[in-house]
Amino acid sequence: MFTFKITSKANGSLARTGTFKTPHGAIKTPVFMPVGTKATVKTLSKEELENLGAQIILANTYHLYLRPGEKIVKKMGGLHKWMNWERPILTDSGGFQVFSLAANKEHHKNKKIQTSVKIDENGVEFKSHLDGSKHYFTPEKAIKIQHDLGADIIMAFDECAPAHSTKKYFEQAMKRTHDWLERCKKEHGKLLSKTGAQIALFGIVQGGLYKNLREESAKFVDNMDLPGNAIGGLSVGESKKEMLGMLDATIPYLSEKKPRYLMGVGTPEDLLECVDRGVDMFDCVHPTRMARHGSFWTKEGSFNIKNEKFKKDEKPLEEPCSCSTCGTYSRSYIRHLFVENEILGLRLMTIHNLHFLLDLMYKIRDRIEKGDFTKFKKDFLRQFKRDVTKKTK
Amino acid sequence: MFTFKITSKANGSLARTGTFKTPHGAIKTPVFMPVGTKATVKTLSKEELENLGAQIILANTYHLYLRPGEKIVKKMGGLHKWMNWERPILTDSGGFQVFSLAANKEHHKNKKIQTSVKIDENGVEFKSHLDGSKHYFTPEKAIKIQHDLGADIIMAFDECAPAHSTKKYFEQAMKRTHDWLERCKKEHGKLLSKTGAQIALFGIVQGGLYKNLREESAKFVDNMDLPGNAIGGLSVGESKKEMLGMLDATIPYLSEKKPRYLMGVGTPEDLLECVDRGVDMFDCVHPTRMARHGSFWTKEGSFNIKNEKFKKDEKPLEEPCSCSTCGTYSRSYIRHLFVENEILGLRLMTIHNLHFLLDLMYKIRDRIEKGDFTKFKKDFLRQFKRDVTKKTK
Repeated sequence: MFTFKITSKANGSLARTGTFKTPHGAIKTPVFMPVGTKATVKTLSKEELENLGAQIILANTYHLYLRPGEKIVKKMGGLHKWMNWERPILTDSGGFQVFSLAANKEHHKNKKIQTSVKIDENGVEFKSHLDGSKHYFTPEKAIKIQHDLGADIIMAFDECAPAHSTKKYFEQAMKRTHDWLERCKKEHGKLLSKTGAQIALFGIVQGGLYKNLREESAKFVDNMDLPGNAIGGLSVGESKKEMLGMLDATIPYLSEKKPRYLMGVGTPEDLLECVDRGVDMFDCVHPTRMARHGSFWTKEGSFNIKNEKFKKDEKPLEEPCSCSTCGTYSRSYIRHLFVENEILGLRLMTIHNLHFLLDLMYKIRDRIEKGDFTKFKKDFLRQFKRDVTKKTK
Repeated sequence: MFTFKITSKANGSLARTGTFKTPHGAIKTPVFMPVGTKATVKTLSKEELENLGAQIILANTYHLYLRPGEKIVKKMGGLHKWMNWERPILTDSGGFQVFSLAANKEHHKNKKIQTSVKIDENGVEFKSHLDGSKHYFTPEKAIKIQHDLGADIIMAFDECAPAHSTKKYFEQAMKRTHDWLERCKKEHGKLLSKTGAQIALFGIVQGGLYKNLREESAKFVDNMDLPGNAIGGLSVGESKKEMLGMLDATIPYLSEKKPRYLMGVGTPEDLLECVDRGVDMFDCVHPTRMARHGSFWTKEGSFNIKNEKFKKDEKPLEEPCSCSTCGTYSRSYIRHLFVENEILGLRLMTIHNLHFLLDLMYKIRDRIEKGDFTKFKKDFLRQFKRDVTKKTK
């Protein structure tokens, strides 16, 4: 279980295809994982996710711990049974959510602001965003909650420092993340030997926007010899150039033989750039969130359906497109649903955007296998102008 | 086209089954028509409606006239093509919506309040609920808009007086409704001969809560010899006893050979009582609206999913139930979706409630044909306690 087999490699690129085995089936990489924060990929049923070809979905420990509570989910048979989702699930550790409460406030380069998140070596005290109640997470607790939720892949509890932190603070957060990873691994092993569950723990590389910290962190995390390695703390406010620079400083130190998961990244351009740099797994709320705000992807870039020009447009969102939305409804009708705040509109758009991204990942895997990924990437990006929305506004 | 064939009659009851032919297929009656106010049955896709066995759906002239405008719908090929719905559609005339703006205000028994709805013999001036803009509907205009929308069955423009109006006002509104029906029929005929469209116009009986007015109105409307007769102005605030009394005063004067459509009625109990009294068609927002508020039907009555007792309930909403919601998700999971305001919850509940009601109508037709409708009605109502929700709160 949790073996990763590389099935093909691109020419002149770090891109590769692979298969990662889990108790709920094998995942073909590179893979994009739709985000189901509260154990539901917003607006979609499980059949729709299956029909979209979603191989694995993500759920959030922080949210499910607060409501309904991991004990309820465990009592209901774990996430898979509760959601009636038979394919793999990954849960994050709650680290990102806990710290994002303090993002851009504490340890900022220029000013110090008091927040309600208190971090020490043992763990983090935070206030619930729902009712202000106090909670305390330790690495051990984050692992225990994830075992109760019962995903296939769980994540180490890390400290994700804000993008504009000082180098000193990035280093401190990285070292704490490393200490916590050791504790997570220990607790994970203890629980596994007690329950016999089949769950993979991934460690998370931190280090902010400093190449030497990223290198140090990558070496440390890779050395823990877990089934997969994740890269955290990117796509949190830094520039695209900075993000890709950090990726280049990290990837060489993460074993080629293990899947590499870049957390929180999910635009078509980013997926292509990061697959090119050797990343195998992605997740992001962007495709589904932008859908609910009316933005949809086409091979030319993104557009907003509320634009007046779509009022009498009989064409589907994209042409050709094999998604169920484009096979059934016109831009004119979907625009009407958005103008009227009709719930069906949110779903139709979510289906299209996820199809667009999952189909892109399918093509990426196909082109890596066929040996022309680099050409595919170049052709795609030439046509895809992500600023179309702005231009047409 | 638009022929109504009675296929069976119940014993000791006015209930009957029939088939009403339309250009988009035959409708088996008695039938419940889900309401798609803005050309979408809230939360549902067309496949879901088809799978639920919806034979015909309803859309609202008032809303579609205001947005996007009937001309847009016409340009997009009419309602059927625009919604991609291939089965029959009925549009109401906008009368009820226009007048409900003034409901309980003007012509009230006890007080007179100025409203923005101005009625005269020619038509109605009203202000849009969206932006306060002034509009003017005449019977002719209401018919023209409905021809542009392109439904199979359209409704006459009537005046639906508030439930607590004086007898004098009810009589005045009824007479106006009759005058307008003549004008609607004339305009409808003119448009039909011009376009060659196949559209059926139904007249609407009014008369408030007075038996002699209902009798007079039923005779007048039936005498217009249209393909179907509707009963309006009920289920608008009067008691259940009053509603059924008015029905009993109306039905005998509506030709047995034409479908009888009771507007705005749609609880399980009401459907059984009114089918028993000879009604063939129903529509109501209640099943879908209550679903979005968390209430679901079972054979014991209605319950609210947000109730704490469902938190760890692994059972489906109802057992046994052949709807896709009950085949896939537990009460515990659906409750979680409602607590978290997750959009999927609204859809799952809508599917269950519409299935419950459409399945009830299927059983009603089956039992009428088998000759034991009266027993079925009695057995159903003994078990179904509509106040369960209140009791368990």
